[in-house]
Amino acid sequence: MSLFGGIEAGGTKFICAVGTDPDNLQSQTRISTTTPEETLGQVVDFFRQQQVEAGEIEAIGIGAFGPVNVNPDSPKFGWFLNTPKPGWQQIDFLGLLQRELGVPHIGFDTDVNAAALGEYQWGNAQGIANFIYLTVGTGVGGGGMVDGKLMHGLLHPEMGHILIPHDVIADPFVGACPFHKDCLEGLASGYAMEKRWGQPGASLPPDHPAWALEAHYLALGLINFIFTLSPERIIIGGGVMEQKQMFPMVRSQVQALLSHYLDVPEIVYDIDNYILPPKLGAKAGFSGAFVLAAQALELQA
Amino acid sequence: MSLFGGIEAGGTKFICAVGTDPDNLQSQTRISTTTPEETLGQVVDFFRQQQVEAGEIEAIGIGAFGPVNVNPDSPKFGWFLNTPKPGWQQIDFLGLLQRELGVPHIGFDTDVNAAALGEYQWGNAQGIANFIYLTVGTGVGGGGMVDGKLMHGLLHPEMGHILIPHDVIADPFVGACPFHKDCLEGLASGYAMEKRWGQPGASLPPDHPAWALEAHYLALGLINFIFTLSPERIIIGGGVMEQKQMFPMVRSQVQALLSHYLDVPEIVYDIDNYILPPKLGAKAGFSGAFVLAAQALELQA
Repeated sequence: MSLFGGIEAGGTKFICAVGTDPDNLQSQTRISTTTPEETLGQVVDFFRQQQVEAGEIEAIGIGAFGPVNVNPDSPKFGWFLNTPKPGWQQIDFLGLLQRELGVPHIGFDTDVNAAALGEYQWGNAQGIANFIYLTVGTGVGGGGMVDGKLMHGLLHPEMGHILIPHDVIADPFVGACPFHKDCLEGLASGYAMEKRWGQPGASLPPDHPAWALEAHYLALGLINFIFTLSPERIIIGGGVMEQKQMFPMVRSQVQALLSHYLDVPEIVYDIDNYILPPKLGAKAGFSGAFVLAAQALELQA
Repeated sequence: MSLFGGIEAGGTKFICAVGTDPDNLQSQTRISTTTPEETLGQVVDFFRQQQVEAGEIEAIGIGAFGPVNVNPDSPKFGWFLNTPKPGWQQIDFLGLLQRELGVPHIGFDTDVNAAALGEYQWGNAQGIANFIYLTVGTGVGGGGMVDGKLMHGLLHPEMGHILIPHDVIADPFVGACPFHKDCLEGLASGYAMEKRWGQPGASLPPDHPAWALEAHYLALGLINFIFTLSPERIIIGGGVMEQKQMFPMVRSQVQALLSHYLDVPEIVYDIDNYILPPKLGAKAGFSGAFVLAAQALELQA
C-alpha cells in the first residue's frame, strides 16, 4: 500500500502526517506558522526524516490557507498568492517540496477543501455531493463540494470574507479584517473575538454574551451560504466551534433567520444532522490531504 | 430537426416560445402572471394552438420562479413549492403540461438556471464552466454553473435572499421582502425601488441617487457571491440592469468593496468582461428552456 504525506498548512499551525488514512498513521507533527523559511524548513525536515524512518513517500497532499493558486494548469500551481499573512506572499510551496524531498506527485488545494475531502472520504460528508466545510478558528474559511467535486472557479472560495449585516449600536467593534474590517471573518473569527473582548474566546464562560453574538454572526454567514449554494449539509470545524454551547445556538439562529422561506425537512426537522461538526475533528485536514496525494499519484502516474 | 417548447415562467410574466434556438423561432408569446388557473390555462392554450399550427412539439423546457422542486428523482419534480406568490404554492406545473399537452418529455429548472443555460449555449457564458447568472427585475434571483453543471443542491440557489449590510441611517427603507425584509431582494429589487422611492425605477432620471444606492446593494451581493463561489464571470439580466448607468457603477463598486483582496487580473484589469449583460437579453430564459427540453428528450428517450 502506498505511503502518503499529508499537510494541513494553516495560518496558525502546520499539521504534517505520514500514513494512508486517519486510522493508519506512521507519524504526525505540529509546526507553528512563523516565517516561511522557518516553518517550511521544519516541514521539509519532518518529511526527510520520515523518508528515512517510514520508507518511500509516494505522494504528498497539501491543504493550504489562502489565497493560493489551485489551478494545476497554471505555472503558479501550488503558490501562496497575496495572503494577508506577512512574508507569505508569492511563495512556491509545492515547488519547494518537490525540489527538497524529490517527491514528484504533489496534490494541492485549500485547507478547507482538503478538510472537506477528508470528511467526504471518511467522515460526516460520506455520500453527500453538495456540502460546505467551514472552519471557524483564528480565521474563518469555507470550501466544500458541488455535485461531488471540490469547489474551485476563478480562484477558490474565500467564504470568510462575505459581508453581513453588522449592527454597530449593539456591537460597536469595528472588525478585525485588514482588508474589509467587518466582514464575516472580521466579526466572527477567534482573532476578532479576542480583539473585541480583550481576552481569548476560550477564556470566556459559556454563558458570556460573546457566544450568542458569535452564533448570530455565524448564522448570518450560513444563511448566505445556504441561499447561494443550497448545500445538503454544513460541517463546521475549528477551535471556536469546540465550545459545546455553539452548535445549538447556531442551529436555532439559522432556523430563525431563514424565516420559513426554505421549508425543507432537512432544515426544519433535522437541523442537528444538517449543521454538525467534522467526524474526523482535527484530523480532517491532513486526512483529506492524503486523498489529494492519492489523486495526484493516480493523475500524474 | 426537433421542435421544442420553451417557457420562462417568471413572477411577472411567462414567456412561451416554440422553436429550436434563439434565432429560429416559430412563435413567441407573453402571458401575465396572475392566478395559476388563468396563467397556466393560457400557457396550455398557446402550446395547443402551436401543436396544430407548427407541428409536433417533441419536448418542452421550463425555467420557473422559485422555490420549485428541480430534483428529477422526487415525486414533486416540477412543482411550485412555498413561493411567496399568493395562490402559487404546491402546484404541479410539469404534471399539468404533461397531461394537457400530451408531451412526455419535459425539462424543468429555475428561471435563472434556464437563462444561465441559454447564455452557456449561445451567449456570453460560452466555454465558461463556473459562472453566475443574476436577474434584477421585479425580484432578484441567481443561478449558474459550477464546473459546467447547473447549480442545484438541497433545493436550488435562492441568491436574492442573502443578507447584506444595510445602513439604516443612509437608507431608512425597511425592505420589501415579505420573509426577510431587508435581504438583497428586499433592498434592491425593482419592487423595492418602487416602494422606496414611491415611483417605478424606470421613471427616475439616470442621475437620481436611487441608482448609486442600487449599485451599492448589488455590488454587496456580488461580492458575497464572488467570495462564496469564485465565478469566472457574472452575467446580470433583468429590467433594472437595462438602465445604461448601472453596469459601470456596479463594476466600480465591486472593485472598491473587494479592496484588493482578490487581485486577479480578470477583476482588476478586465471587469467589463467579468460583469456583463446577457448576450441573448430577454431571450436567454426561453432559449435555455429549449436546451432543457433537448436534454429531457435525450435523457428520457
